[in-house]
Amino acid sequence: MPDLERLSINHITTPRWALPDAIAGYAKAGIRGIGVWPADVERYGVAATRRAMDQHGLVATSLCCGSMFVATAKADVARQRERNRALVDQAAALGARSLICVSGGLAPGEKGLAAARGRTRDELAELLAHARAAGVPIGIEPIHPMKAAEVSSLTTLAQANDLCDALGEGIGIVVDVFHVWWDPTLPRELERSMGRIVGFHLCDWLVPFGENVSGRGMMGDGIVDIAEIRAGVERARYRGFCEIELPSPVWQLRDPADVVRTCIERYRRYC
Amino acid sequence: MPDLERLSINHITTPRWALPDAIAGYAKAGIRGIGVWPADVERYGVAATRRAMDQHGLVATSLCCGSMFVATAKADVARQRERNRALVDQAAALGARSLICVSGGLAPGEKGLAAARGRTRDELAELLAHARAAGVPIGIEPIHPMKAAEVSSLTTLAQANDLCDALGEGIGIVVDVFHVWWDPTLPRELERSMGRIVGFHLCDWLVPFGENVSGRGMMGDGIVDIAEIRAGVERARYRGFCEIELPSPVWQLRDPADVVRTCIERYRRYC
Repeated sequence: MPDLERLSINHITTPRWALPDAIAGYAKAGIRGIGVWPADVERYGVAATRRAMDQHGLVATSLCCGSMFVATAKADVARQRERNRALVDQAAALGARSLICVSGGLAPGEKGLAAARGRTRDELAELLAHARAAGVPIGIEPIHPMKAAEVSSLTTLAQANDLCDALGEGIGIVVDVFHVWWDPTLPRELERSMGRIVGFHLCDWLVPFGENVSGRGMMGDGIVDIAEIRAGVERARYRGFCEIELPSPVWQLRDPADVVRTCIERYRRYC
Repeated sequence: MPDLERLSINHITTPRWALPDAIAGYAKAGIRGIGVWPADVERYGVAATRRAMDQHGLVATSLCCGSMFVATAKADVARQRERNRALVDQAAALGARSLICVSGGLAPGEKGLAAARGRTRDELAELLAHARAAGVPIGIEPIHPMKAAEVSSLTTLAQANDLCDALGEGIGIVVDVFHVWWDPTLPRELERSMGRIVGFHLCDWLVPFGENVSGRGMMGDGIVDIAEIRAGVERARYRGFCEIELPSPVWQLRDPADVVRTCIERYRRYC
């Protein structure tokens, strides 16, 4: 039975709870980690959020997400960089295990992903100096290829490993089972990500897919072999939190305390 | 301006035309190829379909699809094999350039894709003896990873190349821009598919994605750099037809003759 000490829940899983209530509610259930979002942290206040987490013995397992690398006009790029540096500082103030940077997709008028991938590489390099100085790992996250145009030109663990090779210290990888389960190169690329994984996200892929808007389900309700992927992540020497991140139009309607109980039960059974 | 001699349209693009009307309608517009489906061929009759294509000077650029490799019970596997051998014979009778075999996804109760991928390899090997004897290339087609669970555990051109390496003569690859455009390994894997490509399918990926049910659009309406992918396919020495395959709840409502005119115009502009 997996140790609850390593279980975290992303706040998006229980959006009916405001951030302070989520912190208190997770802690009450014995959870030790929470994934948080800048908009909520800023609404409640960075210092107040940190205080509440400390009081309840919770760790911020991720701050998600940085501003996507989609700006092309000079002034927009400057604003985007400034925002990302501020989010690094926010992650530092929260003691977050990483700032997750989702790459973003195409800029208006672009065809194909070459330019988007170049932007991601360049802007990560630009941000890394600040992140290293602040001691905040940047977590890059491969997102499912169905989102390549609109959310993330970074689609595979192989690309994430290539970026880590190119950019060096201070960058790590977030593995989300929903985004990578289908990838035939997953076993090989998990080996290659040895020592690089800074986050591990859990939910499931529902079949038939799409009925449920986001298509995401609670662990055990879908077709992902979660235990197998977790074993690969462990072999890559990841010893951090397992964060349940389940944005779902179905689960968000339920009583958050029930959702948390289900998270714990399914984590123990399937992960 | 690309040569119309190499343009084909898949019948699913103009479903308001019954197969004989599609054959006549495409020919009237100067099109020389058609992609056909077993259900329609069988409704009209294999010999009658072949006669109509010959009379109108059309080539069957693909017969799609074979029976997916999803059976696990012994009797079901036997039936599936028999059906696929019959479809090879049908493709031979039509003079089709390939029988496209979409791998299929998970069998009931399966988690993860390992078993599905094993089935695909084994059943392709089984079918190949018959296909070689009949002189019909089997076209395997990487399908977008969003369909991995339900339609195709074969998701990337790299996997298709691996299967060709493993299975040898008689098997080829169908490249569909909609399914592969996002893949960061595409340029490398197109090089690797030198001489193996037996079909090239065209449409576009719409943004925002999903509004249009299938998310597929007419070439030029989306974000795929089609000309770039076609150049890679040509460098891999493909000299066969470019087949527009656009199953779309929007386009299927339109007058088929108008759809064909648009296909020709967009093919000349974007492909």
